[in-house]
Formats: sequence, C-alpha cells, structure tokens
Amino acid sequence: MFLDATQDEIEIAMQQAHNAFQQYKNSSLKQRADFMRAIAVELENSGDELIQTAMQETNLPEARLRNEKGRTVFQLNSYAQACEQGDWIEARIDTAIAEKNPPKPDIRKMLIPLGPVVVFGSSNFPFAYSTAGGDTACAFAAGCPVIVKAHPAHAATSQIVAKAILRAVEKCKMPNGIFTHLFGASFEVGKGLVMHPYTKAVGFTGSLTGGKQLFDWANQRKEPIPVFAEMGSVNPVFLLKEELAQSAMDIAKKFADSITLGVGQFCTNPGLIIGIESDALQLFSKELGNAIRKIKPANMLHSGIAKAYLAKRKFALAQKGATLVAASDSEADDLQGLPTVATASGQTFLQNPVLHQEVFGPYSIIIQCKDENEMIAIAEKLEGQLTATLMATENDILENHELVNAIKNICGRLILNGVPTGVEVCLSMQHGGPFPATTDSRFTSVGADGIKRFARPIAFQNWPDALLPDELKNNNPLGIWRTVNNELIQ
Amino acid sequence: MFLDATQDEIEIAMQQAHNAFQQYKNSSLKQRADFMRAIAVELENSGDELIQTAMQETNLPEARLRNEKGRTVFQLNSYAQACEQGDWIEARIDTAIAEKNPPKPDIRKMLIPLGPVVVFGSSNFPFAYSTAGGDTACAFAAGCPVIVKAHPAHAATSQIVAKAILRAVEKCKMPNGIFTHLFGASFEVGKGLVMHPYTKAVGFTGSLTGGKQLFDWANQRKEPIPVFAEMGSVNPVFLLKEELAQSAMDIAKKFADSITLGVGQFCTNPGLIIGIESDALQLFSKELGNAIRKIKPANMLHSGIAKAYLAKRKFALAQKGATLVAASDSEADDLQGLPTVATASGQTFLQNPVLHQEVFGPYSIIIQCKDENEMIAIAEKLEGQLTATLMATENDILENHELVNAIKNICGRLILNGVPTGVEVCLSMQHGGPFPATTDSRFTSVGADGIKRFARPIAFQNWPDALLPDELKNNNPLGIWRTVNNELIQ
Repeated sequence: MFLDATQDEIEIAMQQAHNAFQQYKNSSLKQRADFMRAIAVELENSGDELIQTAMQETNLPEARLRNEKGRTVFQLNSYAQACEQGDWIEARIDTAIAEKNPPKPDIRKMLIPLGPVVVFGSSNFPFAYSTAGGDTACAFAAGCPVIVKAHPAHAATSQIVAKAILRAVEKCKMPNGIFTHLFGASFEVGKGLVMHPYTKAVGFTGSLTGGKQLFDWANQRKEPIPVFAEMGSVNPVFLLKEELAQSAMDIAKKFADSITLGVGQFCTNPGLIIGIESDALQLFSKELGNAIRKIKPANMLHSGIAKAYLAKRKFALAQKGATLVAASDSEADDLQGLPTVATASGQTFLQNPVLHQEVFGPYSIIIQCKDENEMIAIAEKLEGQLTATLMATENDILENHELVNAIKNICGRLILNGVPTGVEVCLSMQHGGPFPATTDSRFTSVGADGIKRFARPIAFQNWPDALLPDELKNNNPLGIWRTVNNELIQ
Repeated sequence: MFLDATQDEIEIAMQQAHNAFQQYKNSSLKQRADFMRAIAVELENSGDELIQTAMQETNLPEARLRNEKGRTVFQLNSYAQACEQGDWIEARIDTAIAEKNPPKPDIRKMLIPLGPVVVFGSSNFPFAYSTAGGDTACAFAAGCPVIVKAHPAHAATSQIVAKAILRAVEKCKMPNGIFTHLFGASFEVGKGLVMHPYTKAVGFTGSLTGGKQLFDWANQRKEPIPVFAEMGSVNPVFLLKEELAQSAMDIAKKFADSITLGVGQFCTNPGLIIGIESDALQLFSKELGNAIRKIKPANMLHSGIAKAYLAKRKFALAQKGATLVAASDSEADDLQGLPTVATASGQTFLQNPVLHQEVFGPYSIIIQCKDENEMIAIAEKLEGQLTATLMATENDILENHELVNAIKNICGRLILNGVPTGVEVCLSMQHGGPFPATTDSRFTSVGADGIKRFARPIAFQNWPDALLPDELKNNNPLGIWRTVNNELIQ
C-alpha cells in the first residue's frame, strides 16, 4: 500500500522544497507562528481516525496516544510562541563608530534558516517525534521547508498527520513544496534524501545504527550537513549511600514503574542502576524484583521491536557474571516485552561493554560496586547519555564531589531524586547528550531551543535601516530582545 | 630546533588536559575572565622580542604585527568581559508546578564546557588566530583546556606567546595541563591530537585541504567531535547597475587596495568581482587595472605560500576564456606576490569550476555577465563564502530581490558598499559561512559568540538551590541575564 519513494519523487520533492525555501525563508515570525498554530488546529481536527489508526499500527493504548497527540499540539503551539517572541533569533546590533581608526561599520546579526530539512519519523513516538513532531515544528519555526520520511511502522498514521499539515499549508497560503511526505522502508530512500544537495539538515530519533548511518552519509557529502540524531541511552541511575539507606523501598517502587512505563520504550528509560554493595542495596534489589514480578508484560510497538528485545535481553543475561534478579510472573507472547531486572558486579560491568548497551524495552540491570571508587570508575567509563539520575541526599552530593563531577561529563540532563522518564516540553529542557546519545550534544530536540538547530547567523554590514530585516531595524518593530552595543534591551 | 611532538608527548598533553578539565570546568566565570586578562597582560609584556621574531618568521611588517598583537589583546579582554557578563551561558529556569498532572519538576539549564580543545595555529595571523588567538580565548572562556599545535611557519613566535600564557597560568594558579604547546610539521601530530579520545573539539584556520582533513578525522572517531575550521573564501563582490554607473572609478580604487591589502593574504580578500557588461564595467575594469599596475609586489608569509600563489595564479590565467586585465608593473621575486586582475565572461565562469577557486594572494577576477539572470545563476552556483559584498544603491537592492535572496544563501556576512577585508571584533560579527568557507556555518570564529562553539547545555532537574551552580541559583548571585519561566530577566 505504501510504496517507497522513487529517486524521481525524491528529486521533485527536494526541488520543490528548495523553491519553497526561497519564499518561506523571508516569511515573518508571525506568519511562521500562524502556520504552526494552524497545523496544531488541523491535528486536533483529525479526530478519532488518527487515534484509531495509530492504535492499530503501534499497539500503543488509546490514553497514551491521546496524551501524545496533546503533547504534539502543545509543542506546535509553544514553539510557535517562541518563534514569534524571537529570542532564538539572537539579534545583535553594533552601531557604527565613525571616529574609530579605521572607522567601525554598523554590523547587525541574526539567525536565518539553513534550508530544507529532512525529518525521519521515529517508531516509539508516532506523533510527538514523527510527522508533525518536534523536529518538524522546530524546522518550520526556523523558516525551513520539511520533507518527512514516514516511519514504515506507522505509515498510515503518518499520512493522516501529513494531510493535516497540508491542509494548514493551504489555509495559510504557504508555498507549494514547504512540506512533502514520503514513504520509504528501504535504505535507498533515506540515503537519497540525506545525500541530496538541496538538503541542508537532518532530524532523526531512533537507533544508534540508524542515526550513525545518516550522520556518516551527511559527512561524506561534498557539502557536509548537520544531522541531529537522538539515538537512545541507558540513562544510568546512581544510588548514593545515605539516600539508599533511608529510602531503598520507595526508590525500588518508583523505578519499577519507570523501567516498565510504556513497555520500556522511552529513550529515557532507566536501563542501568548503580549502587554500592550493602544491606540497603540488597533490600532495594529484592523490592525492585518483587515489584517487577507483579508487572504484566504488554504489547510492544511492533513485532520487530519485540523480537529485538527478546534477543538483546537474552544476550545480556547470557554474559558471564550477569544474573537475573527477577522477571514478570506472567508469560509474554511474541509481541510482548517481559519486564526484567538483572544484576552484575562492578568489575563485571567494567570489563564487559556488552552490559553497557541499551536493551530497548522493560529491562534494567543493577550494578553492585564494591566501593565509591568503583562507582566513579563506572561513571568515567560510561558513554554519553541523554540523562543521568542521582538518588542522593544533600550530604551524599557534598561527599561525592568527584563522582558528581564525572557524571556531569556524560549527560545532557542530570536528575536528582526522580525518574528520567517524562520529558517536560519547556525552554530549560535539554534532550540531547554526548555521543552516542546524540550526534550533536550542543543542541536539544525538546524545547524551543531546538529551533536553533536549523538556523545559522548572518551579519549585515553597513545596510540602511529601510533595507534591513524587521528583526534588525533601528526602531525594533517586532519588539524582540536584542543585544545592542553589548547591552540586552527590548 | 622545533621537534615534532611524539605520540608519547601527545598522550601526556591530553592526559594532563583531561585532568585539568575536571578542575577548570568548575572555575567561576570571574576566574576564567581574570585568567584571560592575565594572558593579555603577559602578551603585552612579551615586548619587542615577540614582534621581532614574528617579523623574521612571517615577513609581515612591524606596523601590521603590532596592530595584530593589539587586536589579540583586545580579543582576550573583550571575550573575558563577555565570559563574565554570562549571556553566552544561556541560563534558562522553569520552576516547578506541583499542581500540574503529572507535576512539572523544577528544571534549569546552562552551557557547560565540552572538554579539551585542540587549536591549530594559522599561518596568516601569527597572533590573532594562533596560539593566544580567538579560538584559544573562546575555549578558555567556555571552561576548556587548550592544546595548541604551533604553525610551523612561525614556531618561535608561537613559543614566545605560549610562554606568556604559561606565566598567566602560574599567576592565576590555574591547574597544570590547562595549556600545552606542541610543535608539529608532520601530518601525524595533527592526526594524533584530533583522534585522541580526550580531545572534545578542534579549532582551525587555514586551507580547505587541511581543514577538511581534520573534519574527516574527527568524524571517523568512535566518538565524533566538532571541528570549527575556517577554510577561506573568494568573497564575491556584486557590482549592481546604478551604483556602478555612479561610482565605477571610486569602487575600482577601493578594491585595488582591498585586493592587495596584506599581500592579499586575508581570508576575506575579494577574489571575485561580478558585474554586467556595460561601459561602466569597462571603466571599472580599466581603472582597477591601472591601480593594480601601480601597486608594488610585497613579500608573502613564506616561500611555500608564494610558490602556491604563483602556481594557482598561473593555472587560473591558463583557463580557456580567462584573460589578464593587469598585473603590477614591478617584477616580483620568488617570495613576492604579484598583484593581478584577470577577467572572464559569465558563461566561462559558470562552466569552469577552476575559476571559482581561491587564488590565495593579491589576485581577483572580474566576471562579465551578459545580464541580470546570468548574475543570479552565478550567485546560485557559488559555494559557501565567509562574506559577499553588494555595491548597490537602494534602488539596485529593491530591483534585484532574487539576486539578493540568492546571495544571502551563500554567505555569513553581507556587506553593502564596503570592502570585505577588515573583520571587526564585536558581538554582531559573523566570521563563518556555509561549507566550504567553514565546516559549521552555525558558529562564528570572531566575536564573543565564538565561545559557544566549545560549550553544550546541561539541564538540572529537581536540584535544591544550595547545590546548583551559581548561574542557576534562585537569587542570581552573578546578576546574569536569564530566561525564567519564559521571561528574560536579570
């Protein structure tokens, strides 16, 4: 039913996007914001058909999907607001100083859009990180046309969302080619899109293998382009002594829920829990095991993911020194993910990189360190992560300076006494981290700062006021915040 | 005299930089600023030895070198001020909302340093883009240790500057390893530094071949890292009709000076001038030729650069359809660059990519287009540039919307009725542009925004006020601008 785009179709899509860019890049911040709000309205209008189709394609429950749709609408509206507010434009003005020798010219800088952005839909977020998701919203806010490659696991859902976007395109009289929706289950479609000379940036949420491949293609181009790939994470949790002694049972309950939330299919799933051998850690382990036993397996997104979970879980448990703590008491069928907790010693973990890898699904492993130093060694050896979590009292933090310092090096978000699942959409959110969590730790894919991924600065030197963009005109017609002669004013 | 660093020396330098980072990353903005100001003082204190050595090594005249030293001191001080002012930290705070379902946690974000930065000294700016130049200043401001690979063409100059930095390290009690100075004429030293796992970013100013090689190595690493390479540009100048008709002779004089400034060895040298066939263009061409004939050849930076200029100039002039307009009346010796202007038709240029390439030195080519459309076609075909210049009246700009639109796509700085040489150090400056001008058009290597190249965001979720960095504490002890619940306040 959903045929892969041909190279001709890719060529037409990119040519149209390039043409649309020449117009859309000059749209006002208000026009872009109105367009994004119109998409949000059309998404709301897509009604039950959208939810029903997504339920069929993804196995996700209705409540979760309605929730995710709400989040997607919120993203579009809140990034629209940020787009209009204009802080992200980074307007800087330095006025001329004629007396200087040589005379200093008038220079004014702002961010402008990069050009057409290719967005790859993710499997685990059919709305929020797919067709009209965060990457698309950020690209539109920045002034870039978008070409979406639908995720094959929910192509029909994607098509309904694409139709909503196209209705908004028409309503807002946006240029033809500002949005194109393509199907592609094959390798060639993705490669064709990334390698096309008119493509200027790529957004992706998915596996390390997939994201790294896009990154490599993008860097092998004659003109390399940025790839923002969010490629998952094991999201380590560090249990510090005092906090663990006080709250082992509470923490265990909290994490049993977090590990199995959404059948463990969130990129911020806590897949690694690190503590120091002690009675409290034993108690935590026992309680977590008890809680996990009671949690029923549930359907994963699709059979491919369920199969991969089964294989990776088995491989992890087969590693020397890794043992099962507990699994759900209920049996899992072929489509279900069996909640599982394993354990291993600090030494075993340090020596075996297989245990560092993500087991995408309702799985976590407890690492029992012999002392603080081993915990530090683990923090230093871990690869980049989206999040890291400390379960700690203030004393624990103050007494573990070196550990906390090491943990800061490896993560994009550092959570204290909470669970990493649940990614708030707000300006202060950082959803991104050192490689391999993402391909570019300097940017976020959640929150309005994500707009800046798709923009670059341009400086105007010696331009008369009338010919400058509104963002840089003397009388600041848009009323945005600007740094004028090193002073931030509105 | 200057031996290439061995792999052991590289290993030691990187290990020390990594260790220093664990301490320096926690330094306050004020400590970093004080350190940078101390380097500026020590650079001033280096006195005549520095200037004399640089004169011997680079053939640059004393006045230019004193000027460049002044600029380097200014950069250190002005980036120190920006560092302390803290806007670049991008502090964002969203406070908790307990009533929300689920409750919204307190989240606070700021930029933190990436880690050790390797800086490659440039040949054409022995001070401002070398050892204590813009990249080094930005990295220190961001909180990163720096490892400089001296440019072999001015290794002794580099060593004097390095000693000044090391005196400042001692004076400010900065951690051992925060700065290392290495020599390396060979390929291996550069590769060893870029590939080292402790290296987290690279700064480079130089040739396309050199910069692209560093970029490729950095992306082939297990953990890819960002490379900020500024790789030159032909800096196209577009002569529009009305302005050219009014001021052909003035423009010709202005550009004769700009083309030959510093023997054409600025990365913003105007190497390409595009006009429409007309009497005015003939007059411009004749006047530019006359002016060029009178300009005496001068010594280039070193014999390698002079030899390369000779070869590239010859190759460009040998292209079919390219002809000489004028060269200096004086003869040039082996070390000197002969001021030269060539010309070709728009069609010749469009068909021959050799003519698009930079001829590094006092050289420029005038392209004679048959009409506006051919000029647009050229703007669309050009690769990324640091700058583009329009010589135009307001009418010209208003009547050439499509051309101006196309030019904006290819440059980082757009100059109206001025010359591109002369790069003001200020916040609004953009020194960077689409590939191949630089490897990352989203950042600048001049101005305090360059600090952000070496930093990434981290979000703190649910941290008590006392344990947060000062930048994010409730009472804003540093008095920096922050976005709190979507409102920018100080």
